[in-house]
Amino acid sequence: MKKVAIVMGSDSDLKVVEKAITTLKDYGVETVVHVYSAHRTPVEAKEFTASARDNGIGVIIACAGKAAHLAGAIAANTTLPVIGIPIKASALEGMDALLSTVQMPAGIPVATVAIDGAENAALLALQILGVTDSEIADKLQQARDSKKAKILEKDKELNEKYK
Amino acid sequence: MKKVAIVMGSDSDLKVVEKAITTLKDYGVETVVHVYSAHRTPVEAKEFTASARDNGIGVIIACAGKAAHLAGAIAANTTLPVIGIPIKASALEGMDALLSTVQMPAGIPVATVAIDGAENAALLALQILGVTDSEIADKLQQARDSKKAKILEKDKELNEKYK
Amino acid sequence: MKKVAIVMGSDSDLKVVEKAITTLKDYGVETVVHVYSAHRTPVEAKEFTASARDNGIGVIIACAGKAAHLAGAIAANTTLPVIGIPIKASALEGMDALLSTVQMPAGIPVATVAIDGAENAALLALQILGVTDSEIADKLQQARDSKKAKILEKDKELNEKYK
Amino acid sequence: MKKVAIVMGSDSDLKVVEKAITTLKDYGVETVVHVYSAHRTPVEAKEFTASARDNGIGVIIACAGKAAHLAGAIAANTTLPVIGIPIKASALEGMDALLSTVQMPAGIPVATVAIDGAENAALLALQILGVTDSEIADKLQQARDSKKAKILEKDKELNEKYK
Amino acid sequence: MKKVAIVMGSDSDLKVVEKAITTLKDYGVETVVHVYSAHRTPVEAKEFTASARDNGIGVIIACAGKAAHLAGAIAANTTLPVIGIPIKASALEGMDALLSTVQMPAGIPVATVAIDGAENAALLALQILGVTDSEIADKLQQARDSKKAKILEKDKELNEKYK
Amino acid sequence: MKKVAIVMGSDSDLKVVEKAITTLKDYGVETVVHVYSAHRTPVEAKEFTASARDNGIGVIIACAGKAAHLAGAIAANTTLPVIGIPIKASALEGMDALLSTVQMPAGIPVATVAIDGAENAALLALQILGVTDSEIADKLQQARDSKKAKILEKDKELNEKYK
Amino acid sequence: MKKVAIVMGSDSDLKVVEKAITTLKDYGVETVVHVYSAHRTPVEAKEFTASARDNGIGVIIACAGKAAHLAGAIAANTTLPVIGIPIKASALEGMDALLSTVQMPAGIPVATVAIDGAENAALLALQILGVTDSEIADKLQQARDSKKAKILEKDKELNEKYK
Amino acid sequence: MKKVAIVMGSDSDLKVVEKAITTLKDYGVETVVHVYSAHRTPVEAKEFTASARDNGIGVIIACAGKAAHLAGAIAANTTLPVIGIPIKASALEGMDALLSTVQMPAGIPVATVAIDGAENAALLALQILGVTDSEIADKLQQARDSKKAKILEKDKELNEKYK
Repeated sequence: MKKVAIVMGSDSDLKVVEKAITTLKDYGVETVVHVYSAHRTPVEAKEFTASARDNGIGVIIACAGKAAHLAGAIAANTTLPVIGIPIKASALEGMDALLSTVQMPAGIPVATVAIDGAENAALLALQILGVTDSEIADKLQQARDSKKAKILEKDKELNEKYK
Repeated sequence: MKKVAIVMGSDSDLKVVEKAITTLKDYGVETVVHVYSAHRTPVEAKEFTASARDNGIGVIIACAGKAAHLAGAIAANTTLPVIGIPIKASALEGMDALLSTVQMPAGIPVATVAIDGAENAALLALQILGVTDSEIADKLQQARDSKKAKILEKDKELNEKYK
Repeated sequence: MKKVAIVMGSDSDLKVVEKAITTLKDYGVETVVHVYSAHRTPVEAKEFTASARDNGIGVIIACAGKAAHLAGAIAANTTLPVIGIPIKASALEGMDALLSTVQMPAGIPVATVAIDGAENAALLALQILGVTDSEIADKLQQARDSKKAKILEKDKELNEKYK
Repeated sequence: MKKVAIVMGSDSDLKVVEKAITTLKDYGVETVVHVYSAHRTPVEAKEFTASARDNGIGVIIACAGKAAHLAGAIAANTTLPVIGIPIKASALEGMDALLSTVQMPAGIPVATVAIDGAENAALLALQILGVTDSEIADKLQQARDSKKAKILEKDKELNEKYK
Repeated sequence: MKKVAIVMGSDSDLKVVEKAITTLKDYGVETVVHVYSAHRTPVEAKEFTASARDNGIGVIIACAGKAAHLAGAIAANTTLPVIGIPIKASALEGMDALLSTVQMPAGIPVATVAIDGAENAALLALQILGVTDSEIADKLQQARDSKKAKILEKDKELNEKYK
Repeated sequence: MKKVAIVMGSDSDLKVVEKAITTLKDYGVETVVHVYSAHRTPVEAKEFTASARDNGIGVIIACAGKAAHLAGAIAANTTLPVIGIPIKASALEGMDALLSTVQMPAGIPVATVAIDGAENAALLALQILGVTDSEIADKLQQARDSKKAKILEKDKELNEKYK
Repeated sequence: MKKVAIVMGSDSDLKVVEKAITTLKDYGVETVVHVYSAHRTPVEAKEFTASARDNGIGVIIACAGKAAHLAGAIAANTTLPVIGIPIKASALEGMDALLSTVQMPAGIPVATVAIDGAENAALLALQILGVTDSEIADKLQQARDSKKAKILEKDKELNEKYK
Repeated sequence: MKKVAIVMGSDSDLKVVEKAITTLKDYGVETVVHVYSAHRTPVEAKEFTASARDNGIGVIIACAGKAAHLAGAIAANTTLPVIGIPIKASALEGMDALLSTVQMPAGIPVATVAIDGAENAALLALQILGVTDSEIADKLQQARDSKKAKILEKDKELNEKYK
């Protein structure tokens, strides 16, 4: 089974991105975690990315804040799908990171999820693996069913409460 | 080989989305095109989506403008990866469609590309298929190499011109 | 008398939406509360909505945050008026939910109120019922008169204080 | 049957709002059209609004651009539901009109539709009348069915074309 | 000497607007304070405004949050200059109040100051009175000179500290 | 009678600001027009401003686009009221000019009108002069009455047309 | 004398960036022009940048649109000052390019100028060279004096015209 | 060696700007600190700026919040490079200061860094000095190397932790 790599631009992003790591581990997917900066360690980021496919990685998740170039910089060095998580930093509510991640020019796409959307980044990576891995696809469906059941329980509870 | 489906919310989106169709065809990927509205034809959209995996589809691209719910509505009914293209409509420069597509709540990710980013949506779909399909991965790399060569030619030309 | 339904996308919205529930109860309007997600429980949301008119419901209030599709998804399945409350979530100050709720494409309107505007959503629902129900219309007018009197009291108080 | 009033802040709004007028006429609803400015003719606007219910009006649609106060000013003088259409004027893409219309303070709701959303304003008015008028409700459903059929035709056409 | 009126849309605005009141009192200008809502007490707001000039008022300051219509509604009923203070309320960082206050249509200007800019609103009112009242103009100049001296002191202090 | 000065940051602003000049001339107010740049001709701008009061000027209107510093720079050198017109330039729809003009720090207010709001800038200047000049105040009222009559005519016309 | 390099992300940026080239040539500064994409030709961009100082380059100007990573990517590979020009592309009025260029994380600054601000980018480069090159500094001052004279001429002309 | 000047619009900016001062001192660059307001002390700001080059200053850093005119006002009076730091003040997340600083009209550039980007402002000043000062250039490179080493350590640590 393909591995998923998670690259964060700074270890301060860990508090957001941890949810992606735990989600992937819950599904039994081997996860490789790195701290690489698009600007501070471009060489290391590039080397890791360029060899990712050969190292058994199927999807790369990249997260960064402010002028978030990391996901795009990684996407430039691989034809693997790259998922970008814009991180909400101190100003502008994460709008800067969102636009820096999603508005990629033609040729180098970044699959962008919501601001601070670490869980969805992991789920998207799993869905990508699940295109050809029916076991993961089944687990994703089960998780949805289970989440749905919880919402319906909540629904029942609140529906009763306010009757 | 898996197919790619492209669903547009209105046939007026075709002028943007056509680039995605031609890109996919250039790669020899079988493409299924639909016009489904999240609000006008929710039943048909759902039926198509729910059976997409069984019908050999690997990735779904959805595009819509304004309060662009289509990609999310489709993502709700499949565990296949769904790529969203926010369309720039008459007002707000496409910011409404971007936020409606990318800011999905936890559980149902949409892989969002740039506003009107049809070519990148197609390339992202190809990259997803390329995780396990080395032929597509190779073609993607060749296309990048060829695009790079063109840029370097342009570089040479302009570098000379302004010497 | 017609009932009013309130559907929230997540039980975490309750802290905002409770004001709508209590306002409706103050007017003696029967209120049906549900937790349905546009993406997690689309089938249940649709079934509830499609049968709402037959179940004596006159207006549906829907609230959701981020890429807030719930109000639109509900509006797609009924010709009853649907009121949308955009919820301010962790990022973007609720602008994402506002645009996702209000910028509906032609054909399926959502009557959108302010971000976190639960009280106004309830009042709008009452005004809609009051088009043909003179008792509610009278109560709404009385409430306005009473609110006006309170403001004029405040006016008198501050006018004196700063004389 | 109740009438619907349409009030525009300036006759220059007519090019947008005309769609609302024709939509209402298509449904056989009696429509009263006025040009009233919240700031230029506040007395006339108020008089019209305050007597609207007694004059057989059930819903008021108000549209204005820039700092669009008209819908709110009208809503202040009636307990009838007021629908606001933010008009896209020369700058800011209509965002000013949207926020001026939708962000109403607690107590005086305005049912806001999309920027330039004249057709949806008319449909929302019809849906409000349709809460108790089954004939209108039926027509609305038929119109949806007919629109749906057209989309499915387009779907068939494009699906064939790109096969 | 002309008086200055301060009208706030809600007594909750007092914590911001108090700075305007104290600034005006510091200059010995008679100040009239009111709480009037554009939507809750439109009649009282209008009566006050329409008679303001005859009651010796020279400038009216109006402040409101969200869809801030108050300053415009007041400006519609007088040819006195009206100064608008957009108040930052719970969402959108005050951008809604700013646009609702400043983007007035041609014919009815509102002299808008910064979000929560109560002190500047008072100073602007004083400057308007100072056009023909040399005593106020002199005091304004003295205040500027005194403020300037304080900044230069701070400058000296920090310049030394970091030498 | 006091004069009104109009200062534009660039002669390219003339196409917007001309409406302010003609409006002031319509009221018989002596108008002084200058092209001064906050950054290109700061000395001349300052000299003009510092002597404005002594030269019989009562109000200064300043307009500029992009990072519109002109109104603030002028306001720094006089205690006369300064009215700022943010000009919509090539990008950002005039939002940059609006924020640069209106968000002045405490101490130096700029009376800001709408983006490209040249007519309102002139009217505001006239209202300021009209605080003590009853002739101008009367003319302003007459103009409002005449504008109101025109709107009511339009109202009558459209009301008939759509009956 | 140091040279200035201009790197554009795409040859379609030339229509904006040409003004920078001509401005630099007007000052007699040797200019090196390249087309390098942060994502398409990262290796070439890096090689050029890393050797720029040794090749006699003193300042690098980089321009790009959308998720404009180019200036940051270049800045990561040199300690020379890098000036970024955000380009206004098809959507979002250049706001995406502005935020992607200016919001750089701590450690790797980009000296950002206005959207499409090619002339200012060139002038800033000249000012940087002028820190130690008094000839350029003198020419810059002369250009300012000449520009100032032109504005004062315009001022005289318009001042007369509207007298 | 040239000195660097830091000018802040208010001593309340010191908590942000201190990082710039300490960074410059770490590099052994003589630093001159001032508090000057573009509007409160324009004369002093101008005098300081106009004589800066003669006083051995090579770069000026200016920071201000809200309608941040300081950097532009300083840039108008010198041909030295001026770096602007937009400060995030109470509202609008610093967007007002960013646009007021970066959107400078043609002729007078301001080298803008990120909102609250004091460290980068200092580094940019050092890079500018480093164009001709190889000692500073070397130190900058060493600092980057050292920062890179720290990130790679973090990378190793987190990579191990989540293995």
